[in-house]
Amino acid sequence: MPNLLYLSNFNGSAAIGVVTDDRMYLITDFRYIAVVEATHATPYECPGLELVRVDSSYDEALASFLGAKPHARVGFEAAHLTVSRHRWLERRLEGTGAYSELVPTEGIVEQARSVKDAYELSTLREAAQRVSEVAGGVFNEIRRGRSEREVAMAIDRRIRDGGFDRPAFDTIVAGGPNAALPHARPGERILTEGDLVVLDFGGVYDSYCVDLTRTISVGSAGTRAKEVYGAVRDAHDRAIEAVSPNRSRFAIDAAARDALGERGLADAFGHGTGHGLGLEVHEDPRIARRRPEVDPEVDPVFPGMVFTIEPGAYFPGWGGVRIEDDVVVTDDGVAVITEVTTELLEL
Amino acid sequence: MPNLLYLSNFNGSAAIGVVTDDRMYLITDFRYIAVVEATHATPYECPGLELVRVDSSYDEALASFLGAKPHARVGFEAAHLTVSRHRWLERRLEGTGAYSELVPTEGIVEQARSVKDAYELSTLREAAQRVSEVAGGVFNEIRRGRSEREVAMAIDRRIRDGGFDRPAFDTIVAGGPNAALPHARPGERILTEGDLVVLDFGGVYDSYCVDLTRTISVGSAGTRAKEVYGAVRDAHDRAIEAVSPNRSRFAIDAAARDALGERGLADAFGHGTGHGLGLEVHEDPRIARRRPEVDPEVDPVFPGMVFTIEPGAYFPGWGGVRIEDDVVVTDDGVAVITEVTTELLEL
Repeated sequence: MPNLLYLSNFNGSAAIGVVTDDRMYLITDFRYIAVVEATHATPYECPGLELVRVDSSYDEALASFLGAKPHARVGFEAAHLTVSRHRWLERRLEGTGAYSELVPTEGIVEQARSVKDAYELSTLREAAQRVSEVAGGVFNEIRRGRSEREVAMAIDRRIRDGGFDRPAFDTIVAGGPNAALPHARPGERILTEGDLVVLDFGGVYDSYCVDLTRTISVGSAGTRAKEVYGAVRDAHDRAIEAVSPNRSRFAIDAAARDALGERGLADAFGHGTGHGLGLEVHEDPRIARRRPEVDPEVDPVFPGMVFTIEPGAYFPGWGGVRIEDDVVVTDDGVAVITEVTTELLEL
Repeated sequence: MPNLLYLSNFNGSAAIGVVTDDRMYLITDFRYIAVVEATHATPYECPGLELVRVDSSYDEALASFLGAKPHARVGFEAAHLTVSRHRWLERRLEGTGAYSELVPTEGIVEQARSVKDAYELSTLREAAQRVSEVAGGVFNEIRRGRSEREVAMAIDRRIRDGGFDRPAFDTIVAGGPNAALPHARPGERILTEGDLVVLDFGGVYDSYCVDLTRTISVGSAGTRAKEVYGAVRDAHDRAIEAVSPNRSRFAIDAAARDALGERGLADAFGHGTGHGLGLEVHEDPRIARRRPEVDPEVDPVFPGMVFTIEPGAYFPGWGGVRIEDDVVVTDDGVAVITEVTTELLEL
């Protein structure tokens, strides 16, 4: 649905878009017809959008629509259509006189989405500013004796109170050994003196997602905690320095990975360095290690791309550290749009 | 992912399951390997589950796994695999010596999931009890001068405070004319004397979803509001009376639809009467009108199925009413597991 939102401003949960040479059609049901019509003469209106009403099933409505407007070739989003719907549609179209060949396409809209326009950049900058302000309040929620779950609920409240529509993903509060799980769920564990606690949260602001992580220490941090924190912070800084127009996304990842490798922590960093932000909280570009079997050799980043930089180091049974900011590729380098200290806070 | 959660108790966001004659394999990455291993010797452990670690891409890991364990035919979930991943996998497997034919399957796990076992029923009953208690508090949030959005945020807090992991979907608070949009988003509209307000919310409790709707009046309801409310309430009651083992799901829908039709409101009820509840907030069985081109003629409901009954009537520009409860098909009839008055509350 993010592709449809991008193309048409349609923000519901069920619709099919068809783009022809001169027009965009939106096939949707009565629930959303009224919602789309309500955008008329507002800034959210999509100019020239033609609505097609679903009476029975969506697939049947699409087949009827394509049958009535036969084209020799109809591209479809192969990464968003399931095998079962494709099989049904193929058979259904073969049964009509006017057969359109279905041609798989990939990444056309995603590629357009990966470079943000001025409106999107100003929305993302505003959202990043707001999530940074939320972070300041979040540090005040850290108290010995509170559970991870209680802190996570408090963060979610602050996200909503900060003007976000909702959290962008399930908020992570992972203390002590739980911090070794990059996607831990906040549980009943009580924050305890000496814990490192990973706080990873984000929000959706006017449909756009931002994402921030800080790792704090409950009370004084031990020697090992300071060492690991310093290494991850260095990886974070060096990855950000590596961002510039036309630089390979793999090179940005390598900058973080090399920094950790130099301190013998390469094996502790098992995920990618970052991911694109926009209508989805994980989108292109992926700042990750190159997978030779599927990825091109270079794959540069361009001005207007927005993504996270979030290296981490994790040690099962001990804990972990992750530091995440959101950045924009500018014409001559990079701008960090989240603004929160990266010093190790001992709270 | 709900199918994988059902089969293996895996609750992360990335994994592929492979079921063979005697074993279940879970292909996942390092983030979740640790999470799965942490369930060892807890009630959440999946007995005999074999973990397969993803080193590079998920698809590559699956192809390698299938290549190493060739079977003549490998069924895949056609409704959950995209055309692009299927095409890639077909080509990748053809390139190996040991070729497995990929055979599309549909609805195997979904069908098993639609009938709940004793553990699932007790979880859903507990969740329904909790959401009913939340509803009692929600009525106290209705005050003239508050915006829909403020009320929605208050509902979300009550859902979390009620022991739910999170809301099951975006909470709906739709007052006055907005109530005519069955999937309205809570906005800046202020609750005003005489408004009918649709309140539709749900929660996820120990992975299971419940869903409840009530429509209340801000102050005294007008004649028309009372008439529409009475008609919807009658449709709700008659649909519930129509639930019994081996009854067609279409007949249950028809009971609600006929009740509204008798009062000339057939056209005002544009959605289905209900949907299954479980690991997903919308799952089988769908209590809806039969679509002759895709649906079987009867399609009975069975003891252990859990679904909503939620007829509504909507009038663009005026407003709407919806009343929703959650029910279980029992051995000899039906049990309503949510417990909130269906009287029209004037608050």
